[in-house]
Amino acid sequence: MTRFFYILCAVATTAAFSPHSQAAADDRDVVEYREHIMNTLNEQAAALGEILSGAIPADSAATHFEAVALTASTALKAFAPKVVGGEAKPNVWSDWQDFERRMKEFEKRTAEAASTAKAQGKDASLADLVDAFTCKGCHDVYRDKKRGK
Amino acid sequence: MTRFFYILCAVATTAAFSPHSQAAADDRDVVEYREHIMNTLNEQAAALGEILSGAIPADSAATHFEAVALTASTALKAFAPKVVGGEAKPNVWSDWQDFERRMKEFEKRTAEAASTAKAQGKDASLADLVDAFTCKGCHDVYRDKKRGK
Repeated sequence: MTRFFYILCAVATTAAFSPHSQAAADDRDVVEYREHIMNTLNEQAAALGEILSGAIPADSAATHFEAVALTASTALKAFAPKVVGGEAKPNVWSDWQDFERRMKEFEKRTAEAASTAKAQGKDASLADLVDAFTCKGCHDVYRDKKRGK
Repeated sequence: MTRFFYILCAVATTAAFSPHSQAAADDRDVVEYREHIMNTLNEQAAALGEILSGAIPADSAATHFEAVALTASTALKAFAPKVVGGEAKPNVWSDWQDFERRMKEFEKRTAEAASTAKAQGKDASLADLVDAFTCKGCHDVYRDKKRGK
């Protein structure tokens, strides 16, 4: 069905299609799913970056924060199945308690930022609100971009 | 500031960095911004695809629909500046009235789907709701993936 979407939405990404066992297919789905979530966070953070730079008007800033918060709320669950793969390092699961704590903190802070952005509208200080993006601290510990190649 | 985010979030994408005029920088920002929005739609549609395939539990389905609807609500404005570039074909702007109508329809239908998904919860028929994803009809007319290379 993922492929249905790929065709339906004519997306840029084309997954390699090779025969595999059902188990392998399931694992690949788990990895792809969490990658779609992390990529969404990446794209929305970058959109906010364009706004913060002043290149793009801030009209949609609160909506971007809300999209980030919503997506953050789906992230921890996406990592719950212990399937090593993609850019996630194995310590995501061996240090699960710490990973979970950081993810919940990220979820909480982005939700607060979205709420503030919505309430304050054009008066919101976007530069302060992006403090909720604690990506790097977590990526330094739990992500290895080379693993995803 | 986009680069600030790229560093902050240690994203996979690395933009080519070459000297350019301020005008060129602005145009590039406009193109990149709308690409971040369309890529978000792509990632969230693919996440829903994983759920529809049965590979991933549907726990976050309504949240994904909501993220799609929010992002769709930012899309038309992102195309408003007439900056030809990326995968967008020039007829986005020469046929603006049609493009605008389709984008508003997409925004409306994804908002309705998100609302239904939230209201019906686990009883929602995701297969029916994805009818809101009218991506292909629009991409066939207004997108040329080769242009983005």
